[in-house]
Amino acid sequence: MRAGARCRARDLGLRPGQFAPGSLNAITDVAGVLVGQVTRIEGEAVRTGVTAIRPHAGNLFRDRVPAGLAVMNGFGKLAGATQVQELGELESPIVLANTLAVGRALEAVVDWTLTQPGNEDVRSVNAFVGETNDGKLNDIRGRGITGEDVLAALEQAASGTVAEGSVGAGTGTVAFGWKGGIGTASRLLPPGLGGFTLGALVQSNYGGALLMDGVPVGRELGRFYLREHSEQGDSGGDADGSVMVVLATDAPLSDRNLSRLALRAMAGLARTGAAFSDGSGDYAIAFSTHPEVRRGRPSIADWPNERMSPLFVAAAEAVEEAVLNSLLMAVTVESRDPVTRRRRRVEAIDLAAVREVLARHRRIARV
Amino acid sequence: MRAGARCRARDLGLRPGQFAPGSLNAITDVAGVLVGQVTRIEGEAVRTGVTAIRPHAGNLFRDRVPAGLAVMNGFGKLAGATQVQELGELESPIVLANTLAVGRALEAVVDWTLTQPGNEDVRSVNAFVGETNDGKLNDIRGRGITGEDVLAALEQAASGTVAEGSVGAGTGTVAFGWKGGIGTASRLLPPGLGGFTLGALVQSNYGGALLMDGVPVGRELGRFYLREHSEQGDSGGDADGSVMVVLATDAPLSDRNLSRLALRAMAGLARTGAAFSDGSGDYAIAFSTHPEVRRGRPSIADWPNERMSPLFVAAAEAVEEAVLNSLLMAVTVESRDPVTRRRRRVEAIDLAAVREVLARHRRIARV
Amino acid sequence: MRAGARCRARDLGLRPGQFAPGSLNAITDVAGVLVGQVTRIEGEAVRTGVTAIRPHAGNLFRDRVPAGLAVMNGFGKLAGATQVQELGELESPIVLANTLAVGRALEAVVDWTLTQPGNEDVRSVNAFVGETNDGKLNDIRGRGITGEDVLAALEQAASGTVAEGSVGAGTGTVAFGWKGGIGTASRLLPPGLGGFTLGALVQSNYGGALLMDGVPVGRELGRFYLREHSEQGDSGGDADGSVMVVLATDAPLSDRNLSRLALRAMAGLARTGAAFSDGSGDYAIAFSTHPEVRRGRPSIADWPNERMSPLFVAAAEAVEEAVLNSLLMAVTVESRDPVTRRRRRVEAIDLAAVREVLARHRRIARV
Amino acid sequence: MRAGARCRARDLGLRPGQFAPGSLNAITDVAGVLVGQVTRIEGEAVRTGVTAIRPHAGNLFRDRVPAGLAVMNGFGKLAGATQVQELGELESPIVLANTLAVGRALEAVVDWTLTQPGNEDVRSVNAFVGETNDGKLNDIRGRGITGEDVLAALEQAASGTVAEGSVGAGTGTVAFGWKGGIGTASRLLPPGLGGFTLGALVQSNYGGALLMDGVPVGRELGRFYLREHSEQGDSGGDADGSVMVVLATDAPLSDRNLSRLALRAMAGLARTGAAFSDGSGDYAIAFSTHPEVRRGRPSIADWPNERMSPLFVAAAEAVEEAVLNSLLMAVTVESRDPVTRRRRRVEAIDLAAVREVLARHRRIARV
Repeated sequence: MRAGARCRARDLGLRPGQFAPGSLNAITDVAGVLVGQVTRIEGEAVRTGVTAIRPHAGNLFRDRVPAGLAVMNGFGKLAGATQVQELGELESPIVLANTLAVGRALEAVVDWTLTQPGNEDVRSVNAFVGETNDGKLNDIRGRGITGEDVLAALEQAASGTVAEGSVGAGTGTVAFGWKGGIGTASRLLPPGLGGFTLGALVQSNYGGALLMDGVPVGRELGRFYLREHSEQGDSGGDADGSVMVVLATDAPLSDRNLSRLALRAMAGLARTGAAFSDGSGDYAIAFSTHPEVRRGRPSIADWPNERMSPLFVAAAEAVEEAVLNSLLMAVTVESRDPVTRRRRRVEAIDLAAVREVLARHRRIARV
Repeated sequence: MRAGARCRARDLGLRPGQFAPGSLNAITDVAGVLVGQVTRIEGEAVRTGVTAIRPHAGNLFRDRVPAGLAVMNGFGKLAGATQVQELGELESPIVLANTLAVGRALEAVVDWTLTQPGNEDVRSVNAFVGETNDGKLNDIRGRGITGEDVLAALEQAASGTVAEGSVGAGTGTVAFGWKGGIGTASRLLPPGLGGFTLGALVQSNYGGALLMDGVPVGRELGRFYLREHSEQGDSGGDADGSVMVVLATDAPLSDRNLSRLALRAMAGLARTGAAFSDGSGDYAIAFSTHPEVRRGRPSIADWPNERMSPLFVAAAEAVEEAVLNSLLMAVTVESRDPVTRRRRRVEAIDLAAVREVLARHRRIARV
Repeated sequence: MRAGARCRARDLGLRPGQFAPGSLNAITDVAGVLVGQVTRIEGEAVRTGVTAIRPHAGNLFRDRVPAGLAVMNGFGKLAGATQVQELGELESPIVLANTLAVGRALEAVVDWTLTQPGNEDVRSVNAFVGETNDGKLNDIRGRGITGEDVLAALEQAASGTVAEGSVGAGTGTVAFGWKGGIGTASRLLPPGLGGFTLGALVQSNYGGALLMDGVPVGRELGRFYLREHSEQGDSGGDADGSVMVVLATDAPLSDRNLSRLALRAMAGLARTGAAFSDGSGDYAIAFSTHPEVRRGRPSIADWPNERMSPLFVAAAEAVEEAVLNSLLMAVTVESRDPVTRRRRRVEAIDLAAVREVLARHRRIARV
Repeated sequence: MRAGARCRARDLGLRPGQFAPGSLNAITDVAGVLVGQVTRIEGEAVRTGVTAIRPHAGNLFRDRVPAGLAVMNGFGKLAGATQVQELGELESPIVLANTLAVGRALEAVVDWTLTQPGNEDVRSVNAFVGETNDGKLNDIRGRGITGEDVLAALEQAASGTVAEGSVGAGTGTVAFGWKGGIGTASRLLPPGLGGFTLGALVQSNYGGALLMDGVPVGRELGRFYLREHSEQGDSGGDADGSVMVVLATDAPLSDRNLSRLALRAMAGLARTGAAFSDGSGDYAIAFSTHPEVRRGRPSIADWPNERMSPLFVAAAEAVEEAVLNSLLMAVTVESRDPVTRRRRRVEAIDLAAVREVLARHRRIARV
């Protein structure tokens, strides 16, 4: 596995959407949000990891945040869904892992919550664990990650820059036939629209026909889902695998409006060319960090329905850019199938080729 | 109102997606589907109409088709939703009208059903009526359409070419700041993917930042939602208004898989730059015309989950192209506000300008 | 049609549940709620009407209330559902009518809203209209009600006692094989549980095996759904027809918690012996009248999730009792089928027989 | 822990509903369904267990059954929900455990599936794990159950009689203030209604005011939720805790109709006096064992909507009786709080007292 000089979408000159990003262009631009990641690369078969997102540094079980969930295609093993929908709140961090490791990740999130100071008498925890299937590169039947990995990701969670690409829960993922992974981006709303910050983090592991800010990069590079049925050339591979999206904002949103916000993540995914295929679990969870919407207050702030639209636009933009970052920052990953011993390799998308296509389509300036 | 020489997306050279269209590139490529439209342009204020889609020419109440519904943003007055969701079937034609005319359209669909031969003893009808708000051009408080218009649209429904643009329920609609309207498109799946036909019809009346096959036409032409907040220039207008999507297919799908198919319409809308704003009702209804999935059979055909993905891709493509057709075929419409007497005018998108942008972005060949 | 001396459940000695009712034991115990009803009995065929519920006397479109919807079985023509679910608010009164009259009722609610002072520029109205099918007694294909009837019900809406039984939208309904109709009840929560008032109104037109406070009255009187399949005797008739439930409360609930509250209406219906049959539309809408949850406020009151349970219990109780009142207050209704000219008659449940069964089962004292 | 002579509802003379039970009056009356249970009673603190339901003895991952889910109150940690909803199918057994053990149960179900013959290349498993909170008797923070327990329950799963009461996942549960647990019941539809068998299994751990076939046993015995707010006497305890319902049928139902069937479980729970409280996770999963609805067939049997109602009635009846069985068969369980060392004891409901109340209310004959 060699790391070339990867870059983010903006470094290429891409600027999807109309709003400006925050200073880090990351989910951590939303004050208080912490991200921690553990990458597991072991021997020839283990290529996986954990990404944890904590809405705030405090005791989340005691100081819950409103949250909303959106499901575009529910082929996924997401744990914690129905309680978030029922109560409109998140009482655990969000942990992203691989498909077959949800059980142990869930157990670890419960352990972590039970042992936090102040939770000595807690007897019910709704752990929120998402996943995508990294079995194309990882020995997924062997899981690869442990409860300790999950606890480490939670403990290491920090503000600041978020590592992207082939790291954490994105270590072994594949998107659009290239190496996918973790990506993040953010948007600042102008003061007249509320002045809020919105951040997105994705674990990209899905397919379709890759678009970059509208440019058909997948087709231009001859790699897209169902290619063999519509033109000469090799198969573009399947489109299954899943994508998890996490949205954070400091806008004082109700859980209903957070659910609506989460649904707009799907617009961002659509603009990257997602097939939303049968075998993909396409989920988004959104939460608000605003102090006046925390649970347990007799009176809460409430951003009105009729002022939601700019946030909807920002969510779609941030998700689109986060996906691009996940691809552009990912490095090629190789492994061996633990059973067949066959070599497996998923290449990072070629930056020079991408640049050429984008420039030809006038989306970026020619260098 | 003058009609310039309008054209469809393919006439411009656009070919969104990867699958080929049917011979008409219309929802009527799905055998048996009938479309009827009544356009009401009267005096200076009335600019509205009705579009009716009949899944087949028979007695739909007696010979129901499986159907599924998807709601991206439910700010709309859609009638018939909960019964379609509960029973997974459509027992009335689909009628599209304007927001304040849903009541009378619904009454007319009930009348029509009650008087069909064989329905003499029917005492319950779930009329399916969708709408978008054409109040920017139409005297919507006056409704403009009558029950007779609805009956006429149903009676005139026919196979063959579908009129697009400023006709029927699209007579007074606005999309992305330009004149929207009715648009249609279709896709043929290759034999190896089932060989099915899928058709879409849209009533476009929503906003955002217009993309045409990924090219940012809205921004290039200086007209998009929230423009005044992100760059110099006039406001791009609001993004509210709604969009109704109708999907037809001859694939033998269950109602659950039709609901999933309908949800993929939203991917197509997203790729046109939809803001999915708070005040937009973004709905899709999908039905199957396959004879072996009609209600009342002891045994039904069932296309499996794991073969749905190509249909999902086709649905998004057809919807995207149908929206483009609605804009490119629409003609400029003028009216007067019935109260203020102020002149109102929504221009058709300029084809020459569009061509220039698309060519500059290498999406179509330069003429 | 002769009116015997009918009585309410409490007059019989029944007291379902554990909480006390309000002074009227009616939905109008919730301060500000208004109910208006128009009964249409004309000739031998028309037996129908309208019941309107206004959450407050003001301009509801300008001063919206949070609302939530629950659907147990969605075989119904309810208009307005998706927007209530999306926005969590009610912008029109609730109007109950018959199945085939939803179109004209909807048109009338739109008319009424458009003409209210302050609504001169309104161009979008989400009219909320429910229905049940009164075709067993009413000439439903002829509708029987007009837009004027709807407007009259809205205008006459008042606080105070609510007429029950064979009135308004319950004029022609049938429940459990006996005459159903409009019923209402309320509950007061003790101060320690919030001290709130909760009121229910039902339009009962469904079936099953009637239970009164747990006593199997339907079976004891030999009339219940599917009787012919489980014991000797005549058929108990079908169970289809629908039931609409309206819940009002002065508790400061979010729309999400109002949806949860609405769902508990189904527990109340279940305790009356509802079959929740395929052909029944079983819906509940709940709204809050609390001034600090009205739309458009930057900060709203918010009753917490963990204090909702007593309200859930109260909702089920009030609905159960409202159904009993609808049956016990209803009078026998006769009509003729407009086509066959056959005489139709649905009897009020026999109070003496009910008393005997209840006393034998020790639910009420023997007289 | 001493076991008195417990009995089932029918042994007491209760016969809720109108349909007859199958020969075992258990979910295993549905041919092919297997149930396995492991009870963990260790030392003074562990009082928990596992109950596993297998729809058939084959490789479920390869031979999936259609399934539908219903959620009344989603305060629960159910794993596997969204994929069942999306695909309408079950690919793993149903495992019931305790709230904090879902993670390890999920891991064990994945392990079990991966190691079944024929699943050597499986890389994605949607394990379906339900739970209720047995923390009132069990050292739930210590979980008490292991992956081995789950595997043992799966391996031991068998047809025939199902152990009820304080066993398996019901070992430490509490219902209505008494000892709850596992209960089961079934119904046979008469030939004219399809002749199908429907079975229910419940893990009862919820509260409210206990009704037995409509008789207010909870109030008569002075123990019900919120008692302290409505009459003199001790608190009836909280109503939280959850209930899981599993429904099996040999009727050839679509996943949509299985979802509708599952929802009727809530009617059965309502008739037992359920409060459906904020802190209760009230879920039902229904599946069909009919060979002609298995996944992967080009053509499937389809029981029509309009013939569903008798199945709906049967589902509510079976669930009601299963809950009664869970209470009547449960034995008193004692333990110690692992932290405070306080003795804990939840009594089995007193059969003599129950008999007396039921006889006084004429629901059963006096002995």
